[in-house]
Amino acid sequence: MTKATGGESVTLDLLKEKTAEFAKERNWDQFHSPRNLLLALVGEVGELSEIFQWRGEVAKGLSDWKEEDKVHLGEELSDVLLYLVRLSDICGIDLGKAALRKVGLNAIKYPAAGKGSSEQT
Amino acid sequence: MTKATGGESVTLDLLKEKTAEFAKERNWDQFHSPRNLLLALVGEVGELSEIFQWRGEVAKGLSDWKEEDKVHLGEELSDVLLYLVRLSDICGIDLGKAALRKVGLNAIKYPAAGKGSSEQT
Amino acid sequence: MTKATGGESVTLDLLKEKTAEFAKERNWDQFHSPRNLLLALVGEVGELSEIFQWRGEVAKGLSDWKEEDKVHLGEELSDVLLYLVRLSDICGIDLGKAALRKVGLNAIKYPAAGKGSSEQT
Amino acid sequence: MTKATGGESVTLDLLKEKTAEFAKERNWDQFHSPRNLLLALVGEVGELSEIFQWRGEVAKGLSDWKEEDKVHLGEELSDVLLYLVRLSDICGIDLGKAALRKVGLNAIKYPAAGKGSSEQT
Repeated sequence: MTKATGGESVTLDLLKEKTAEFAKERNWDQFHSPRNLLLALVGEVGELSEIFQWRGEVAKGLSDWKEEDKVHLGEELSDVLLYLVRLSDICGIDLGKAALRKVGLNAIKYPAAGKGSSEQT
Repeated sequence: MTKATGGESVTLDLLKEKTAEFAKERNWDQFHSPRNLLLALVGEVGELSEIFQWRGEVAKGLSDWKEEDKVHLGEELSDVLLYLVRLSDICGIDLGKAALRKVGLNAIKYPAAGKGSSEQT
Repeated sequence: MTKATGGESVTLDLLKEKTAEFAKERNWDQFHSPRNLLLALVGEVGELSEIFQWRGEVAKGLSDWKEEDKVHLGEELSDVLLYLVRLSDICGIDLGKAALRKVGLNAIKYPAAGKGSSEQT
Repeated sequence: MTKATGGESVTLDLLKEKTAEFAKERNWDQFHSPRNLLLALVGEVGELSEIFQWRGEVAKGLSDWKEEDKVHLGEELSDVLLYLVRLSDICGIDLGKAALRKVGLNAIKYPAAGKGSSEQT
């Protein structure tokens, strides 16, 4: 089991282990089919959107938000992440590896200004 | 700068750094307001859903999927993750820390069978 | 004002009028910007998804659903529709006209089997 | 078959008939299970969001949008509507009737200012 101590950065593998253990302890594996988890993720994205829906444009850093609203936002962002990690796990996808690969693909698709095309491949 | 070598587990902080750097190099910070990023995330969730939409129930592990479809799925899962990480960063939320806290809250809300209530706090 | 009597079919224009009147009476026009309404719609799609998330595949007609669950489903489908109608109105889009046009475009894009291509244009 | 002539308002029943006929002619009924249609709807909501994602706040009426962008928006709003109508139909829900009922419930939940509570029931 991966350990997370105070100062360390959280890994996707740690979250994968924690969500897998959580489901197993509650006998929830039976409910965690890919499409069930996907719809649960969509539900959480809906809750995330509700936080932003009547606010008009929101400033970076949320400087004028109440502390409790920021805490709530962190919870909804987390719910989306936890279902995303669980969905990836159930589908047999290594999410961390896939994400690093995708960043690389994006860099090829959208070359940074000032970088020669010869550097892109 | 956090380094990711071959065998290490990918951290959320590494993805945060990579997406921030990516935006900066392309002068995209101007577009990365919280609600712009949220809508971009919703767009990616839509693309993720499209992969599953006409398949009926899908078996865990995607054993009967073509390899290219699994690769495509990994890309769409990654796109959701990358916007989620970026949205959290722009909002000033420590996503990894928030996710670990949320797992703890979920464990209190849904106690595991066979665990006494005294263990939940 | 369009009237809806018992036996008549509900029109999109009637729903447009009702949602506009509803907002005006509550002084909510100030909140009904396009992106606010879009995020509210996403929130309702999330609630709709939650109804289906742990059910596995669902049979057409929902024959084994409890009556109260069907009523709840009707409410969530309606919430999505009402925000969709309102969003269209605020954007100045005639949703009914656009939908009929889109059905026509779809028929060209996906010709029915047994129909000659000369009939498609 | 309900007819829509030039000046008439489009009814939900007309769209229901048209989407049902469309599916039947293409032998697509086999794919139109409730959860398949729901995920297709989520996919279209994603495409709708993409139109708005990098624009920052958008003014009512879209006065500064290009005509082609408005047409595109009408198409994406329509795609969401058509799947919503089809999903309702497949679930055996009368969407128009449900929507009128929901407007009534909303009026009770959120009484208009200046209206006495005695008028709400």
